[in-house]
Amino acid sequence: MIETDILIIGAGPTGLFAVFEAGLLKLKCHIIDALPQPGGQLAELYPKKPIFDIPGYPEVLAGDLVTNLMEQIKQFQPGFTLGETAETIEKQEDGTFIVTTKEGTQHKAKAIAIAGGLGTFEPRKPLLKDIEFYEQENRGVDYFVKDPEKYRDKNIVIAGGGDSALDWSIFLSNVAKSVTLVHRRNEFRGALDSVEKVQELKSEGKIKLITPAEVVGFKGSERIESLDVEINGARMHVETDYFIPLFGLTPKLGPIANWGLEIEKNAIKVNNALDYQTNIEGIYAIGDVNTYPGKLKLILCGFHEATLMCQSVYNRLNPGKRYVLKYTTVSGVDGFDGTRKEAEKAVVKSID
Amino acid sequence: MIETDILIIGAGPTGLFAVFEAGLLKLKCHIIDALPQPGGQLAELYPKKPIFDIPGYPEVLAGDLVTNLMEQIKQFQPGFTLGETAETIEKQEDGTFIVTTKEGTQHKAKAIAIAGGLGTFEPRKPLLKDIEFYEQENRGVDYFVKDPEKYRDKNIVIAGGGDSALDWSIFLSNVAKSVTLVHRRNEFRGALDSVEKVQELKSEGKIKLITPAEVVGFKGSERIESLDVEINGARMHVETDYFIPLFGLTPKLGPIANWGLEIEKNAIKVNNALDYQTNIEGIYAIGDVNTYPGKLKLILCGFHEATLMCQSVYNRLNPGKRYVLKYTTVSGVDGFDGTRKEAEKAVVKSID
Repeated sequence: MIETDILIIGAGPTGLFAVFEAGLLKLKCHIIDALPQPGGQLAELYPKKPIFDIPGYPEVLAGDLVTNLMEQIKQFQPGFTLGETAETIEKQEDGTFIVTTKEGTQHKAKAIAIAGGLGTFEPRKPLLKDIEFYEQENRGVDYFVKDPEKYRDKNIVIAGGGDSALDWSIFLSNVAKSVTLVHRRNEFRGALDSVEKVQELKSEGKIKLITPAEVVGFKGSERIESLDVEINGARMHVETDYFIPLFGLTPKLGPIANWGLEIEKNAIKVNNALDYQTNIEGIYAIGDVNTYPGKLKLILCGFHEATLMCQSVYNRLNPGKRYVLKYTTVSGVDGFDGTRKEAEKAVVKSID
Repeated sequence: MIETDILIIGAGPTGLFAVFEAGLLKLKCHIIDALPQPGGQLAELYPKKPIFDIPGYPEVLAGDLVTNLMEQIKQFQPGFTLGETAETIEKQEDGTFIVTTKEGTQHKAKAIAIAGGLGTFEPRKPLLKDIEFYEQENRGVDYFVKDPEKYRDKNIVIAGGGDSALDWSIFLSNVAKSVTLVHRRNEFRGALDSVEKVQELKSEGKIKLITPAEVVGFKGSERIESLDVEINGARMHVETDYFIPLFGLTPKLGPIANWGLEIEKNAIKVNNALDYQTNIEGIYAIGDVNTYPGKLKLILCGFHEATLMCQSVYNRLNPGKRYVLKYTTVSGVDGFDGTRKEAEKAVVKSID
């Protein structure tokens, strides 16, 4: 069992910064995230894109912001459970919580901070009859390319018109026996490079394009054998081993939705008049995952919410003790690793 | 008359960042500050000291943070009234406000954001009988060295044991006829360089030191002629033309305290459950100058408060219109100077 003071669910910028503010108050943090690396959306969806509204940064690449936050919190030695999804929570009699992931890892904490962003990103699925059957393992429908080798020397059909569809078509054209890309328009939306590369591979006969078209049905008793594709009102038949619809990701709150928290518009209601605590004492929600009157889903708001949350946890765990987050320029920063950062101090020296 | 959408009082980090968020909502800002340069405390009190709790900056010099914020808001072309103190406010019938500085400059705005930090810094004064008399112009007591030439070939007594007392003693030892430094301890607290330099000047006879001692009284009918100084229980008499007590600065709310705002512990009460508005509609208070349950006087909190304030002003000025601050990575940033910042966009291109 992993034990910590504050268990943070979500390793996006808000969750990461919470480690820093907790550290100033001598509280230890551990972070769970479903993604394999810290940074949330910033690392997973747009690491190379600029953000313009981080205060004090006229422009910063999302990936660089994550790197800087990791550097900033390093001294407070946060623990990480990555690639796992927080699934259940139990409040103990002593007021602590036990959070267990889908994968079975258990975490015990004095307070919980849900910093889950927009939630867990789940694939958008085509509305097709019987798709639930073919989604089952090894029946032919995949929403992610986890291991390209799975498709070696197989016939595959990819559907979609964005970067994922383009990029995997390009990549798998060197792996699969055949790649067919189906898209409901002639136009693709993606990096110029990728669009041009697909054009080239199509000319060379390495990718087959069917546009404007849509997959409308499956054939196959045990697993997919072929797809029905509608093109210009006509219907055609495409034999394939795999069908990979890449229609983007859509955020879902996930198992947290079943924790008994007050939910509004897919977000967790919190007390913004005080400390961003939810309806369950000891559970906080910070960053894009929460909602309150006037809420703005901005990273800089998450930083503030994380800070007030940490102060509230401190006050809850240390009733009667007064310690308030202060200017770091004056107080310095003492890391859990024994390091100390501080501004150069004035000397006190007598003159004789 | 200067006209603007949001008149910001205080050019510290919170006031500066408000310009950026207002700009995203197409609102223009003008800033008044009593100091001659933007940056507030950061620029005036500790430009060369590091701050450790700006999210995404493991360490940043206060002066550099100001420079970066000025760069970030440049595209929104804020106006500045620097070196002037906002003194009076009048609410007009049409809901706008007119703010006039002590110096007489008038500003008309649709909303007011007070970002006054800890307030205006005023000198700590020694509690001495008759000091109010000698404080008057040219009677000999000065709390600031505005123009060193004033002291040329004069006898001066400086009191204090910190950097200001040390630095001005050093500087004026080359200007004044005589410099006497009085401090209630033998120990001085300041940069090592300064302490050593005073020691050296003392040895050379260029600064006279009286420690541990205190100035306890004045003599002189029209202006100061001499000071009574108590040293080890004994009393001595020091002839002088000027007495300059440098006991540090203490923040005062200043004229804003008379604007009819609800004040608590030298700070302005705001509605933190919504938009950091004060008890007067259209007047907001953001950053260290405000107070609410759970308030932390941290720069990062000011950034959040500034952002929610801007959104509230927008909603107030544009009832029924829906525009919410969005991810700048997606929306880009359009400057008032015609510039546009944006993330590289995906192309939409057909493949044939």
